[in-house]
Amino acid sequence: MEHSFIAWAKQRASKLPQVALGIGDDAAILSSDKSICVTTDSLCDGTHFVLNECGPRAVGRKLAGVNLSDLAAMAAVPRSMFISLCLPKAGDGGGETNSSSTPSSLAVEIFEGVYEYAERFQVAIAGGDTNVWSGPLVVSMTAIGEVAAKGAWLRSGARAGDAIVVSGSLGGSLFGKHLNVEPRIALAQELIRHFDIHAATDISDGLGIDLLSIFSASGCGAELLIDKIPISADAIRMAKISGKAAIDHAMGDGEDFELLLAMSPEEARRLPAKIDGIPLTVIGQFTSRTGLWGRDGSRVRQIAPKGYTH
Amino acid sequence: MEHSFIAWAKQRASKLPQVALGIGDDAAILSSDKSICVTTDSLCDGTHFVLNECGPRAVGRKLAGVNLSDLAAMAAVPRSMFISLCLPKAGDGGGETNSSSTPSSLAVEIFEGVYEYAERFQVAIAGGDTNVWSGPLVVSMTAIGEVAAKGAWLRSGARAGDAIVVSGSLGGSLFGKHLNVEPRIALAQELIRHFDIHAATDISDGLGIDLLSIFSASGCGAELLIDKIPISADAIRMAKISGKAAIDHAMGDGEDFELLLAMSPEEARRLPAKIDGIPLTVIGQFTSRTGLWGRDGSRVRQIAPKGYTH
Repeated sequence: MEHSFIAWAKQRASKLPQVALGIGDDAAILSSDKSICVTTDSLCDGTHFVLNECGPRAVGRKLAGVNLSDLAAMAAVPRSMFISLCLPKAGDGGGETNSSSTPSSLAVEIFEGVYEYAERFQVAIAGGDTNVWSGPLVVSMTAIGEVAAKGAWLRSGARAGDAIVVSGSLGGSLFGKHLNVEPRIALAQELIRHFDIHAATDISDGLGIDLLSIFSASGCGAELLIDKIPISADAIRMAKISGKAAIDHAMGDGEDFELLLAMSPEEARRLPAKIDGIPLTVIGQFTSRTGLWGRDGSRVRQIAPKGYTH
Repeated sequence: MEHSFIAWAKQRASKLPQVALGIGDDAAILSSDKSICVTTDSLCDGTHFVLNECGPRAVGRKLAGVNLSDLAAMAAVPRSMFISLCLPKAGDGGGETNSSSTPSSLAVEIFEGVYEYAERFQVAIAGGDTNVWSGPLVVSMTAIGEVAAKGAWLRSGARAGDAIVVSGSLGGSLFGKHLNVEPRIALAQELIRHFDIHAATDISDGLGIDLLSIFSASGCGAELLIDKIPISADAIRMAKISGKAAIDHAMGDGEDFELLLAMSPEEARRLPAKIDGIPLTVIGQFTSRTGLWGRDGSRVRQIAPKGYTH
């Protein structure tokens, strides 16, 4: 339902002068405070994490990681985080929670996970709200960042002929990456300083779906070079268990939290193979033909954008 | 747990230059973007509302109302809202949800409730996040406002000798006011324009507890004139059912979302009896003697701050 709901909410939103960029991108830009960037995400026990398996610190880390990844995808520098918690009563929470933890100790552990990211990225936890209720754990965050002097990266700036570039490698995030998110803050700052990037997002739903979010916002299509897509070691491990091909895991698992970028072919040729140890790979190009296409050797065929559905 | 947890989180927070005011007040002020004010609140089915009784629009209205009330208590002008929803699966949600509603229709109805406030107060819904999960409805909002030119109202500015002033009347909010929140945005703007206010908060937990939040942040105490406290008609109705005194409902029910203010006695004497039809009442004074005291005729006795505990 998310896409049609967002489309509805977007057209339903009043056009007010203070919002330079509202619903529909990775984060919002408020023009009256011209340089700030705001994103929000909630995570639910049993859907985005399993508290009894991963523990509360990992929940805090993931909460910070996914929000900061959204800011990285805008090339914003994160400055502050606001956390809202709905904590299960002690010994409650739909049987999901360790009965030895009180709401208070649970909240502290979640905050400690967030603080790991707060300290690493020098972001302030500037506010929040805590509640105790009869349901399982729900955690929410709003993260605010400063927009770079060159302006934020939007999804809508890709042009036919632009190279599709991805950071890192993809797939198999359930083996750990989905909890230990590496928001590409420093990489994004390095890229915006030295390169002309036309569009960007982070890979949360899966390469196919997130690429669709760029080319549909940009009014073009995309052709992937299937054998160039960087497949992670975890995608290969996952394929041995699932019986699916490793490339399917790389294309559709999601929660990679890598940067997906559009830039001119000239800029793409100037890119180093790695920045700070993180590979950068050209995996295709944006096209004037709409839709998502895959080139495998000499064959080109239309592919359905697939992603991991929680 | 909330107070000790907030105290912990406050001292645990890194002191970073971009946060002019962090955890512990009604909202945060970010100094690098110097003029914005951010607040966040979550509401949970069964705790802050009962979805099956009030319906989803009322949930959206309450979500907007409580967040805008926090901004009013800072004398900020609200500019944007960010909404995060955790929606029960159709026919799920711990048996709390009307089985005829889909997650999508539920989200639309909640947004419609928020839009009523967005339109009335000319605030943008600038972003959000929607999730579907196996638990009951949880809704979260972050609201951002602009700080007034004179600066924001903090809780920490009350001085011994200041008058305690309250807007409206108190108690019995369960009869409707807790869902139909009237954020005192316009009143706050009127007050900051024409009066010198030393400290403020909104009454969410109850007069006693919220007054405590001002005088403890300000390093003083407070003496209430019990017979001056404006008791609402709903508090009187509630007293007939509960068997308690109406004054106890006025002092402790909470969710009144009225402004609670500190100002000099000279400023208090300049106040009109009403602004835009909303009564303003002097209900006591801040004192150098710490603690909360109540004067009833010639008797003065210490009173325990009580509030409605969800």
